[in-house]
Amino acid sequence: MHRFEVRVRYADIDQMGWVYYANYLRWFEIGRAEMLRSLGTTYRDVERGGTLLPVLEAHCRYHEGARYDERVVIETGVAELHRASVRFGYRIVRENDGELLANGSTLHCFLGREGRAGRPPEALQKLLEAAPRAEAGSGV
Amino acid sequence: MHRFEVRVRYADIDQMGWVYYANYLRWFEIGRAEMLRSLGTTYRDVERGGTLLPVLEAHCRYHEGARYDERVVIETGVAELHRASVRFGYRIVRENDGELLANGSTLHCFLGREGRAGRPPEALQKLLEAAPRAEAGSGV
Amino acid sequence: MHRFEVRVRYADIDQMGWVYYANYLRWFEIGRAEMLRSLGTTYRDVERGGTLLPVLEAHCRYHEGARYDERVVIETGVAELHRASVRFGYRIVRENDGELLANGSTLHCFLGREGRAGRPPEALQKLLEAAPRAEAGSGV
Amino acid sequence: MHRFEVRVRYADIDQMGWVYYANYLRWFEIGRAEMLRSLGTTYRDVERGGTLLPVLEAHCRYHEGARYDERVVIETGVAELHRASVRFGYRIVRENDGELLANGSTLHCFLGREGRAGRPPEALQKLLEAAPRAEAGSGV
Repeated sequence: MHRFEVRVRYADIDQMGWVYYANYLRWFEIGRAEMLRSLGTTYRDVERGGTLLPVLEAHCRYHEGARYDERVVIETGVAELHRASVRFGYRIVRENDGELLANGSTLHCFLGREGRAGRPPEALQKLLEAAPRAEAGSGV
Repeated sequence: MHRFEVRVRYADIDQMGWVYYANYLRWFEIGRAEMLRSLGTTYRDVERGGTLLPVLEAHCRYHEGARYDERVVIETGVAELHRASVRFGYRIVRENDGELLANGSTLHCFLGREGRAGRPPEALQKLLEAAPRAEAGSGV
Repeated sequence: MHRFEVRVRYADIDQMGWVYYANYLRWFEIGRAEMLRSLGTTYRDVERGGTLLPVLEAHCRYHEGARYDERVVIETGVAELHRASVRFGYRIVRENDGELLANGSTLHCFLGREGRAGRPPEALQKLLEAAPRAEAGSGV
Repeated sequence: MHRFEVRVRYADIDQMGWVYYANYLRWFEIGRAEMLRSLGTTYRDVERGGTLLPVLEAHCRYHEGARYDERVVIETGVAELHRASVRFGYRIVRENDGELLANGSTLHCFLGREGRAGRPPEALQKLLEAAPRAEAGSGV
């Protein structure tokens, strides 16, 4: 899976001292953006090319909390690639000991300029076919 | 299901003009907090009583985007009540036309002061038994 | 000044147990939006009419922290109205005892459709002239 | 000044397509945390040592908006060091052309374990004396 490191910030933490649960979805966004970049495009360019990837579903399982100033690795891969949708799988891993903190997935459709969902442009299709696969069981 | 209204703020919106997907989980938090309040307690008092309800899982399906300044209704109910966990179900509904924007669920354990998960205190157990039920199919 | 109540949410709190400092600017946004609504328009309609009010400056003084589940009152008023800019003043007050938690201001220009700053449309100008004044010393 | 790069994320952007104004304060937090790290300590360790640095004031001037996926440089330095407070100055600069997007400052006191503000521990005092200075005019 593609790996990208981020650091936990004060703004991310809640009163229990752990990262607030919605912020993992923000990390998922960073993971898929950086995976696209590693494949030679950017989500910005995909959007400029006329295709949006709105989220249809998001799932997350929380195993252990991340704490302030820790470094975590966002692992991202393609879990399922269908004609008109793609599911990304994610693992959030603590950098210093490899502990799995959370895993999950997001499902996206391909939305064209005219606001209709359908198949992605061929270039994007090929890119997603060539993307790292999500490990079995990484998604939810 | 318990109902609570919120308004979409500028800070909630992303570049597509829709509410950013992670912010629905923030709404889920508001929904369960307000449902507890409607039952005569508060999550603050539950915590002060020594019980945390950390999130083990979160799921959300997105049907239609909420837009700036719209009012949305957060509908919350208990979807499953087990000995050592509770799942809340949610529906996010646009106030002016009742359109379902999103639905989902969160699964929580009961974490005592000593950091061990287990059964909830009896008062909380009774309260959750008396809580509004989530409609079938509301959760994910 | 115009008053609008909000409740502190888990997502707003940081590890110290207080509302994270950037979230007060979110409250300022809510305050000015609700003040405009009380005057008979909405910021959404101002935008649709072709005028944006981007923020040029934001200032905040923090006196005492807000805590989880507290209700706070956002007090908003016009602190200065110039030909091509407006400054809103804010006071964030704890609801149950009236304690001043923070005060501040935001300065905005009027940005027309063509991306040029200038004078506001006359209707908006009149509305801002009729708006509640910020108490002396409320802004920063 | 100390320099640290971040990338603008979808979550940071508002409906105008620019970074939401409160998020610059989040960047300021990252800037001061990374400046402390570059000096050989971390804010986490300062806290663990019994000293909190709560924010007393925050100021920001917005010159030009940052857009999705751009890289910005957070420049941080000590603007004023008093017996019982420190002001950090910040400049937010677009990475690819050096354009100044925003500048500002935050004022902090030193809060000891017993909840009383006062002088910082000597080690922290020395560290702040040795820190990069904020350029004149960087703060607000």
